[in-house]
Amino acid sequence: MRKELLRNRLLKIAREAEKASFILASLSPEKKNAVLEAMVEALVGNKDEILKANKKDLACAQKKGLSAVFVERLTLNEKRIREMADSLKEIAKLNDPVGEVIKSWSRPNGLLISKVRVPIGVILIIYESRPNVTSDCIGLCFKSGNSVILRGGSDAIHSNRAIYRLLENVVDSAGLPKAVLHLVQMIDRKAVDVLLSLDEVIDLVMPRGGESLIKEVHDKSKIPVIKHYKGVCHAYIDDSADLPMAQRIILNAKVQRPAVCNAIETLLVSEKIARNFLPTMIESLEDAKVEIRGCAKTKGIVKNIKRATQVDWGTEYLDLILSVKVVSDVNEAIAHINHFGSNHSDMIVTQDQANAEKFLREVDSACVYVNASTRFTDGYQFGFGAEIGISTDKLHARGPMGLEELTTYKYVIRGSGQIRE
Amino acid sequence: MRKELLRNRLLKIAREAEKASFILASLSPEKKNAVLEAMVEALVGNKDEILKANKKDLACAQKKGLSAVFVERLTLNEKRIREMADSLKEIAKLNDPVGEVIKSWSRPNGLLISKVRVPIGVILIIYESRPNVTSDCIGLCFKSGNSVILRGGSDAIHSNRAIYRLLENVVDSAGLPKAVLHLVQMIDRKAVDVLLSLDEVIDLVMPRGGESLIKEVHDKSKIPVIKHYKGVCHAYIDDSADLPMAQRIILNAKVQRPAVCNAIETLLVSEKIARNFLPTMIESLEDAKVEIRGCAKTKGIVKNIKRATQVDWGTEYLDLILSVKVVSDVNEAIAHINHFGSNHSDMIVTQDQANAEKFLREVDSACVYVNASTRFTDGYQFGFGAEIGISTDKLHARGPMGLEELTTYKYVIRGSGQIRE
Repeated sequence: MRKELLRNRLLKIAREAEKASFILASLSPEKKNAVLEAMVEALVGNKDEILKANKKDLACAQKKGLSAVFVERLTLNEKRIREMADSLKEIAKLNDPVGEVIKSWSRPNGLLISKVRVPIGVILIIYESRPNVTSDCIGLCFKSGNSVILRGGSDAIHSNRAIYRLLENVVDSAGLPKAVLHLVQMIDRKAVDVLLSLDEVIDLVMPRGGESLIKEVHDKSKIPVIKHYKGVCHAYIDDSADLPMAQRIILNAKVQRPAVCNAIETLLVSEKIARNFLPTMIESLEDAKVEIRGCAKTKGIVKNIKRATQVDWGTEYLDLILSVKVVSDVNEAIAHINHFGSNHSDMIVTQDQANAEKFLREVDSACVYVNASTRFTDGYQFGFGAEIGISTDKLHARGPMGLEELTTYKYVIRGSGQIRE
Repeated sequence: MRKELLRNRLLKIAREAEKASFILASLSPEKKNAVLEAMVEALVGNKDEILKANKKDLACAQKKGLSAVFVERLTLNEKRIREMADSLKEIAKLNDPVGEVIKSWSRPNGLLISKVRVPIGVILIIYESRPNVTSDCIGLCFKSGNSVILRGGSDAIHSNRAIYRLLENVVDSAGLPKAVLHLVQMIDRKAVDVLLSLDEVIDLVMPRGGESLIKEVHDKSKIPVIKHYKGVCHAYIDDSADLPMAQRIILNAKVQRPAVCNAIETLLVSEKIARNFLPTMIESLEDAKVEIRGCAKTKGIVKNIKRATQVDWGTEYLDLILSVKVVSDVNEAIAHINHFGSNHSDMIVTQDQANAEKFLREVDSACVYVNASTRFTDGYQFGFGAEIGISTDKLHARGPMGLEELTTYKYVIRGSGQIRE
């Protein structure tokens, strides 16, 4: 398709989404929740249709010879559809953030100023071939009052289309404009480039997927991006740490689910306790099949481990591998984390209040922990009830993003004829 | 300079700013305020030096034949230096937002989660030839704990350099890293392009100036931008408005200072009152030298006025010109504003509670007013005590931006050995 034509078509879609967002912004929580409940029914009641569409995607994936991990993510079954539906049910139960008065105050001239939470407007989500993301994002954007434009991976197109059509029907039956949700089904890869140029209509883009997708979106986008690059998370074990506690936390943060962003990738240990702590710590990690890559000092204490290279300190393994470094003190630990980390989640294990506070204050990450596993960086674990992603950016939203992070604010000013002198 | 070399030099500057920002982030309010007070002394005590530098800029501007408006903005005198110093004094008096616990809660597993306000990090400000912006931005960024990199207009280079050196000395004398503030003095225009590519170190860029500067920064930047495009502000006079009040507010919002962004550019009037309201309203505007550009219906009521074209509805005149349109009701007014407005400030004058609430809810602007002049959209008028700009964006900050808007947050999680099951 010619770029001009493509642009016109996508701009029209985005403008309709924008118009629809004004209607959505004024909807009552009751109405929105009723629609979400109807979406639950639509998914559960039409699971066969979704599974049939998913089979088509799976057949294509097989023909293309896509990897087992890829196919696993693409696969839907009754349980997964039930989970998608449950997730919408949970979203319906959450507090509606829209309309909340964040603060309000009056001025000496009598003006009453309120800072009120409102939807962002139109959100674009670009994601890979995980069909459950389609319904999750629709649910979260709908509840927070935002129109959503979805661009999913082409290998999930049949599954996404089936889910989208069912949910679009629900919206339509509820008497709402269908444009509050839109799945971009054009195969043309240039569609993404065009979408990312529509900054006059689309307010926010969230890429969800691997590092290369996120980089591509960030490089091309004229629209503000909130992204999650990677999680190179650290644990620092201070001199004064309760060592059995440290061992439990490290094992949990590395081993419980190594493939996720909030698992640790680097262990930093104070040299005052390294000789005492590292042998048993490394032994228990190796028992759990973790490969250790140590600095020179670590290798001086525990032989028979790999030597870490400079590259290791910045690597998100997402696997049973841990780099280990002996540092002189909390200051060196903080400097290492701020240099090599990814501003995601980092922890200190210590009984020293001053070192704990120093670490919490000076480590420049979205989530900083004392004496707890970084694995808690998660919208559900934080009590948000839902999560659309974890931001490693600093603007607008940082860390786990729930419904509130899908809103912005406006100032509402009520007067009685005030003019400026 | 070769781009590679330029990049290396600017990256070094940015990295030093980043390192310095970690120190600045932990500074006490008392220490920061003492430095701000010393900056006040430095400006007032060395005003002759600043004025001498400013004379050089003015001589160059004269030689170049720059416009009177431009020269006026560039000009410093004793009064303006006093104002710059006063502004720093005011900033010293403001509450320090850093460290504020925005909220905190505990989880069933005993984790205590706090959302804590922290500086953003490194802020880049690109601005035109107004030397007072140099000290204002240094003061606001310093107080909010951010390192600042300044790139001012080349025509103010001598003035900016003089101000910067004085304030840099103050920081140095206080034992702080000089890199908390940096003025980029390279003449090479490519420096801006390179700065805007340093998204791994610089956290935020704020362009301050005309539309073309802002567009250029937005188009080139890989760093998140918070910007203020323009203020196409509206007044809508509803059927039920108190008409003398409406007239007072309109006059104020258009005439009191027409060249600023929060002055109105379009007046929308309900057709039910247009015949009654418009003749006296337009007469008083014309008495105040305002040129009226009306829609067909307006011209049907008041002859001898210009006809507004389609272009007028989206134009920020910044001058004594007002476009006037008769609309059928509040719905048409809202649709017009959301279509032609710039998401800045818009008002309704009405005695009808339902229409007021509808307008406040549905107009998608940073500041929405009922029965008060849009001229109040201003950090000082809002009671923020300072203003670094007014955002017409929706993410991170919307409307007037004070110290709080120059911060972000982190999650601080305190545990006692919690691990994830």
